[in-house]
Amino acid sequence: MSVYLHDIPLPEAQERLQAALRSAGLWGRLGVEQVPLTEQAAGRVLAEPVWAKISSPHYHASAMDGFAVRSAATAGAMPNQPLILVCQPSPANREAQYLDTGDPLPDWADAVIPVENVEPLDQNGELSADPRRPDAIRLRASVTPWSHVRPLGEDIVATQLVLPAGHVLRPVDLGAIAACGHIDLQVARRPRVAILPTGSELVPLGQPVKTGDIIEFNSLVLAAQVNIWGGEAQRFPITPDNFETICQRVSETAADHDLILINAGSSAGSEDFSARVVEALGELLVHGVAVRPGHPVIIGMIAVKPPDSSEISRRVPVIGVPGYPVSAALTAEIFVEPLLARWLGRQPQEPVIVSASLTRKITSPGGDDDYVRMAAGYVGGKLLAAPLARGSGVITSLVRADGIAILPRGSQGLPAGSDVDIRLYRSPADLRRTIFAIGSHDMSLDLMAQYLAQRDRRLASANVGSLGGLIALRRGEAHLAGSHLLDPDTGVYNLTYIREYLPDTPVKVVALVDREQGLLVSRGNPGGILSLEDLTRPEVTFINRQRGAGTRVLLDYHLESLGIASQTIKGYNQEEYTHLAVAAAIASGRADCGLGIAAAAQALELDFIPLFQESYELVIPSEYYVSPLLAPLFEVLDDLEFRQAVASLTGYRVSRMGTLVAEVS
Amino acid sequence: MSVYLHDIPLPEAQERLQAALRSAGLWGRLGVEQVPLTEQAAGRVLAEPVWAKISSPHYHASAMDGFAVRSAATAGAMPNQPLILVCQPSPANREAQYLDTGDPLPDWADAVIPVENVEPLDQNGELSADPRRPDAIRLRASVTPWSHVRPLGEDIVATQLVLPAGHVLRPVDLGAIAACGHIDLQVARRPRVAILPTGSELVPLGQPVKTGDIIEFNSLVLAAQVNIWGGEAQRFPITPDNFETICQRVSETAADHDLILINAGSSAGSEDFSARVVEALGELLVHGVAVRPGHPVIIGMIAVKPPDSSEISRRVPVIGVPGYPVSAALTAEIFVEPLLARWLGRQPQEPVIVSASLTRKITSPGGDDDYVRMAAGYVGGKLLAAPLARGSGVITSLVRADGIAILPRGSQGLPAGSDVDIRLYRSPADLRRTIFAIGSHDMSLDLMAQYLAQRDRRLASANVGSLGGLIALRRGEAHLAGSHLLDPDTGVYNLTYIREYLPDTPVKVVALVDREQGLLVSRGNPGGILSLEDLTRPEVTFINRQRGAGTRVLLDYHLESLGIASQTIKGYNQEEYTHLAVAAAIASGRADCGLGIAAAAQALELDFIPLFQESYELVIPSEYYVSPLLAPLFEVLDDLEFRQAVASLTGYRVSRMGTLVAEVS
Repeated sequence: MSVYLHDIPLPEAQERLQAALRSAGLWGRLGVEQVPLTEQAAGRVLAEPVWAKISSPHYHASAMDGFAVRSAATAGAMPNQPLILVCQPSPANREAQYLDTGDPLPDWADAVIPVENVEPLDQNGELSADPRRPDAIRLRASVTPWSHVRPLGEDIVATQLVLPAGHVLRPVDLGAIAACGHIDLQVARRPRVAILPTGSELVPLGQPVKTGDIIEFNSLVLAAQVNIWGGEAQRFPITPDNFETICQRVSETAADHDLILINAGSSAGSEDFSARVVEALGELLVHGVAVRPGHPVIIGMIAVKPPDSSEISRRVPVIGVPGYPVSAALTAEIFVEPLLARWLGRQPQEPVIVSASLTRKITSPGGDDDYVRMAAGYVGGKLLAAPLARGSGVITSLVRADGIAILPRGSQGLPAGSDVDIRLYRSPADLRRTIFAIGSHDMSLDLMAQYLAQRDRRLASANVGSLGGLIALRRGEAHLAGSHLLDPDTGVYNLTYIREYLPDTPVKVVALVDREQGLLVSRGNPGGILSLEDLTRPEVTFINRQRGAGTRVLLDYHLESLGIASQTIKGYNQEEYTHLAVAAAIASGRADCGLGIAAAAQALELDFIPLFQESYELVIPSEYYVSPLLAPLFEVLDDLEFRQAVASLTGYRVSRMGTLVAEVS
Repeated sequence: MSVYLHDIPLPEAQERLQAALRSAGLWGRLGVEQVPLTEQAAGRVLAEPVWAKISSPHYHASAMDGFAVRSAATAGAMPNQPLILVCQPSPANREAQYLDTGDPLPDWADAVIPVENVEPLDQNGELSADPRRPDAIRLRASVTPWSHVRPLGEDIVATQLVLPAGHVLRPVDLGAIAACGHIDLQVARRPRVAILPTGSELVPLGQPVKTGDIIEFNSLVLAAQVNIWGGEAQRFPITPDNFETICQRVSETAADHDLILINAGSSAGSEDFSARVVEALGELLVHGVAVRPGHPVIIGMIAVKPPDSSEISRRVPVIGVPGYPVSAALTAEIFVEPLLARWLGRQPQEPVIVSASLTRKITSPGGDDDYVRMAAGYVGGKLLAAPLARGSGVITSLVRADGIAILPRGSQGLPAGSDVDIRLYRSPADLRRTIFAIGSHDMSLDLMAQYLAQRDRRLASANVGSLGGLIALRRGEAHLAGSHLLDPDTGVYNLTYIREYLPDTPVKVVALVDREQGLLVSRGNPGGILSLEDLTRPEVTFINRQRGAGTRVLLDYHLESLGIASQTIKGYNQEEYTHLAVAAAIASGRADCGLGIAAAAQALELDFIPLFQESYELVIPSEYYVSPLLAPLFEVLDDLEFRQAVASLTGYRVSRMGTLVAEVS
């Protein structure tokens, strides 16, 4: 085995897998099983076409509550020339007979008159009390043959094709299959998929984690994917990084599974055994695919000796799934879903694809098919797509993704403003109820997302700092921006910047919270950091916010007024994009202190040295201020429960929440 | 109870149900349950927001296989000025340390250099054989702090909102929830829905059916719908039409269910007890909703006495679902799905809506919201929608429907060519692989649909007769038309008609089959019908095909040449649209004979008197003849298995199948 894996293009990897499966006789439906026709059959895939065994209706049925008649006998009936048909005598000379909807039409009749179109008569020729058991009926209009009759086979004629093989059964399909006389179904057998988590660093869910432990959850995601795609997933316990143990477990599971997913160990590290395991047990077809994220994918076929050695050995495909969670989930989408579709005989899943306008440029390594997760939403009638975090370890980027853009091999990226095709993970309707908030991060936005979700809105927030938010508004890329940009000259928040950066965009400014800014320090404040002056001490490492962040503006303003030069602060150039990220940097010991809000300190159990009070406001273009999309947001600002939840965050005041602070037109 | 139900507008019905549920405290999430975080949780609805308990990663982790270093110690390293860092000595003065991906960064380090970017050295300063356990490393570039490190909280920071309540869990969500320290979930309890089929005419699936029996399958469809929508359906055995028995069963099931669906008995017939049952056990809120199909819907609330009579009585909503299968399925979509969504705390399902051009006019009763099932597909780049059968008994119209158009109350209909909004039942991708065949019906088209399904194509056929098919091609409404129109003067099929009806459309004519036409008669031919002359016998009832059908043209041609006047044939004006429908009419005794193909006779076990041989051809506009959409169709015509399947139909010859008969430009 070479230390470095060798990436091949995705189509070539797919071709190698397909060729190996073909030669093993595994490139088609795996098997057929008969299941009873119950509600459990929904979602199964038909393995045989369904041909009608009987017609539906299987007899001529009355389509209404009414009276069976011979249509010829009604000829001449008119409003002023009524006609009477006798119901009660012996069947031989009966002229009309009451039928409930669905009752069979008597042999002698060829039409039905609805009950509301006749006058029921008793023996004396008076109107009958029981409209369904009269002695005769009087009618004032003739009927044509076969009116209000559902003729035999109206819905389904025996022998016709009702549903083709490969169809994924929906509830109404089950009804049609029952209607045409079936009581069971031939469906594709569910492929059995073994999921083997490997890695000495992995700990199972629920076990306490210490530094270096990785919670094993890829098997959870993979199993849920396999089940949703129609397979039958079985998760195995974690196998430690040991060549022999992994070999043994793969051999064992191959005996009663159709596909084995080994996760991870698919790269080329010192403890990445998957490729060697596959080579030892069979044939390694692919080690490395030029897709990003996910490239260290392994594909192979292993041979399984049956217990009775006279039989021919079975072959079982193995996919080595990379360990990073985003890579793992996308590898399954790319390789496992289409394989299950093939084995089930159904269409592979096809996402809805929409074209959107890119808000930021994307750069892409030219050698890979690049799967870029995207946030997407409608702003001002235009569908926008913003690339999300690219790290393959960032599973929340998949959780937050509204879709994926695939930049093919050879593409170096796309400039901002390009049209890009997005394969949607959500319904287009979901995108239409999305409020795009961009700008500065505040804890109350997380709470607001929850309260908006209860009101049929989705809040998608991007944290680019206050100034970044105003610039995004100018570009028409968001519905609102959270901002806390102090003008040092006036002491007023935001207005100066709005006038400068949004000269042509009428906006409303709405107060959200007043909050304390201060220094976040380790618990117990071991460094004794109490003021901005302490940041210049040589043993103190600071963690900063990015340029354009309100907190950064605040810091620079106070540093200047104190006469402190930024280059005297160690870590001044280390930037994070949110308060929580600053807090996390301190909690982990990466830095000793940072400027931020009390809530972030509280969240990560840090100490907080309050320094300043500031206003955090929402800047909302006037056109959205009055829109139905944003109406629920103002409800939330008025919601006492929401206000209390925000007020309970340390250092927060909500007394001005919802106040219209300014209108700039 | 009045005999005739009184329809109210849909919004009013929904409002009454909602008001009753509100006052019963049932207009919100029904309950919360804790479930373990396993793959089984996919599809459940979060009842509480998920806030991160721990950060992910929860320590600074190496993002690559590589060496931990102090970034400051790498300063000055350049290609021609390498720098050596020592790995092996005691931790106190260690300068580099090998890490696998995911390993924690040591306290003393602040960056990682990927293994491929260093030269590993042994004790003698030579290149080391083991790149992961060298004594020292040589590097030729400096690194910046935190490069190739995944800092604590890169993905998730403790306390942040990961997912809001009301979110329907997808596989990747489960991973994110696990990553941030959860091992179980608070999800909405599944609403328990009882489904009570009622009706003395109903027979359960699998029991032999006799005339008047109706196979009970609505409960199957309703149960599958409820389960898919997140409820827990329980189907009960059929209850006969008996007021007391139904009352008793409703009372019993109310004790441990959240919703009761009674099907049917919701109309105003003599055995429609649902409304009386609801009145007896509680309050009848709605009897009749102005929607079509589906109007005899019943909505009510019943009271359930708890075993301990000191407790306050529970209230349980009851929906009386109409008996016609299309009405039943749509009633569930309209009333049950949104109610389950509310009880689960999730968004109601929202279909993808597309605008399509109507191929035929629709007429609509102005008083109802009219749900019109539609076939839809792309022809020549344009999305077309063709209304399907309107009968509420025709469940195959729902099976075949690609979507639904809702014509609101007050609309009298829409003219052909109008734009109409379609709520899609299929993915847009499915519509793009649909081949629209229109025209004459032939049994081989059903078989072709099956063979096309295996080749990623869906065949949607509309039976409008040969002439109707040519007219549809002229209007650009189909990809091909099946046609067998004999020109009596020339004896040539189709060409004369193509020249007349498609003067501006270049087409190719491809042979499909040669087939026998003849008289379909009851088994054993009790009427002794042997020729067209027998049709004029007074005791013989004929069933005809519609005007424009090739079979009708054939009949009229032969009648004329025999000098038989059509008015001497009883039933000449009774028309059916397919061979199978003609056969069904004869099988049921509605007629004694009809002209059609042998295969239809064989399908319904009729006798067949062969009279003529004819050509059935496919007329294909040249632009589609060469299209990727239709390519698989020509593969099917070449497929030996398909040819054999067609040849095995009685009276069929396939020797010319696939031959290009003519090009008309």
